[in-house]
Amino acid sequence: MTRFFVSPDVVNGKFAVLTGENATHAKVLRLKEGDMVVLCCGDGQDYNCTISHVAQGQIGLVVQETLPSHTEPSVRCQVFMAFPKADKLEHVIQKATELGADEIIAFPSQRCVSRPDSKSLGKKLERWQKIAASAAEQSGRGQIPTVRALESFREAVKLASQAENPVLLYENEENYSLKNALEDTPCKTVSLMTGPEGGFTTEEIQIAKEAGLKICTLGPRILRCETAPLCALTAVMFFYGELD
Amino acid sequence: MTRFFVSPDVVNGKFAVLTGENATHAKVLRLKEGDMVVLCCGDGQDYNCTISHVAQGQIGLVVQETLPSHTEPSVRCQVFMAFPKADKLEHVIQKATELGADEIIAFPSQRCVSRPDSKSLGKKLERWQKIAASAAEQSGRGQIPTVRALESFREAVKLASQAENPVLLYENEENYSLKNALEDTPCKTVSLMTGPEGGFTTEEIQIAKEAGLKICTLGPRILRCETAPLCALTAVMFFYGELD
Repeated sequence: MTRFFVSPDVVNGKFAVLTGENATHAKVLRLKEGDMVVLCCGDGQDYNCTISHVAQGQIGLVVQETLPSHTEPSVRCQVFMAFPKADKLEHVIQKATELGADEIIAFPSQRCVSRPDSKSLGKKLERWQKIAASAAEQSGRGQIPTVRALESFREAVKLASQAENPVLLYENEENYSLKNALEDTPCKTVSLMTGPEGGFTTEEIQIAKEAGLKICTLGPRILRCETAPLCALTAVMFFYGELD
Repeated sequence: MTRFFVSPDVVNGKFAVLTGENATHAKVLRLKEGDMVVLCCGDGQDYNCTISHVAQGQIGLVVQETLPSHTEPSVRCQVFMAFPKADKLEHVIQKATELGADEIIAFPSQRCVSRPDSKSLGKKLERWQKIAASAAEQSGRGQIPTVRALESFREAVKLASQAENPVLLYENEENYSLKNALEDTPCKTVSLMTGPEGGFTTEEIQIAKEAGLKICTLGPRILRCETAPLCALTAVMFFYGELD
């Protein structure tokens, strides 16, 4: 069934109305009266609805049943990624959403080649959030991950350290692995931090350590900056049985 | 240290010579006499060398020590991917190489929208193999994965079924998971088969089942056709301790 993401106020007891882009999308899909659709408003519930009316720019729905969304992971995983070059962040946002990330947070780091200026950032965030929304819809998520951008590395470390299991992936760490970190700390919130093309500096690793982040390897092969966060996120989901 | 992939006959006892693209690449990197480099010839060994001579189009090397490559996974994992649209296969080849795939094999499937004709396939394979070589070099692999293309789905199923643990990932399977398959069959060779944008047909699933492939879910979220093989490969590598 097609899933539509709506704001929480759209579901009003037994009735709901699709408008704007959602109504256009329904029209493109040639949905008609009697067809079933699923409404998600990010509250972890699936609202199964039938279409009762199709009008110009508006689709009337009747809520038939409300079920807990079975596609939201039991582990909340935040993905912190240093601003990469080109459109790699868009790629990571799309894939991390499919794979079950709870939040995707971009931050500047010493070796970042590109970081958007504050002027362009507003527009970019809007675009990134749309990519997350579209990937959430396509993959059947019950929630759209939030996409954010922070001002500094220190701010990112501070926020990441608030997860029960805060992890930083570092190519120069040789012993302590992500699996070690997951086994050592059974919990429900994990943050994963990965660096830019040139990697983190030793100074940054020191700051992260002092804030309580666990410095982990992802194995002997060097992963590109856009591969590492998705590899780590997949490993977390596998560990928590979320790929079962 | 910079890694160079060479054909096995280049390493000749204690001496070796870089020519062609490798010599050009060494020049771009401004390598000079006395610098250390690593030669890989796909035999699972790392040849640590010093540069003894730099000439036009030729770099002379002296082999200092030979060590087993520590970056090759202990599990041999073949990735079978139905021909996807656009340049998604290139993306998967690059990422699967970084993540440790042993072979990447493309095949046609009933719902494939695009499949290269035999005329263009030769050139494409050459290009794909170069992408794998470049990713192997960058990620520090001791071996370049082979990239192949098969003529039919049946041929792919036959080849995949020869792995000790042959797995097909299917979005309509709800119970048996990749983790189940990995736990049920401890082994050293795994094949992972994933479908095109529109998924496998029930007829194809039947053929695969009859050939002994295990039909597995990757969890409740629907992954895009380019995300599924990388997700499955990462899960296998994590399971085998290859991300430690």
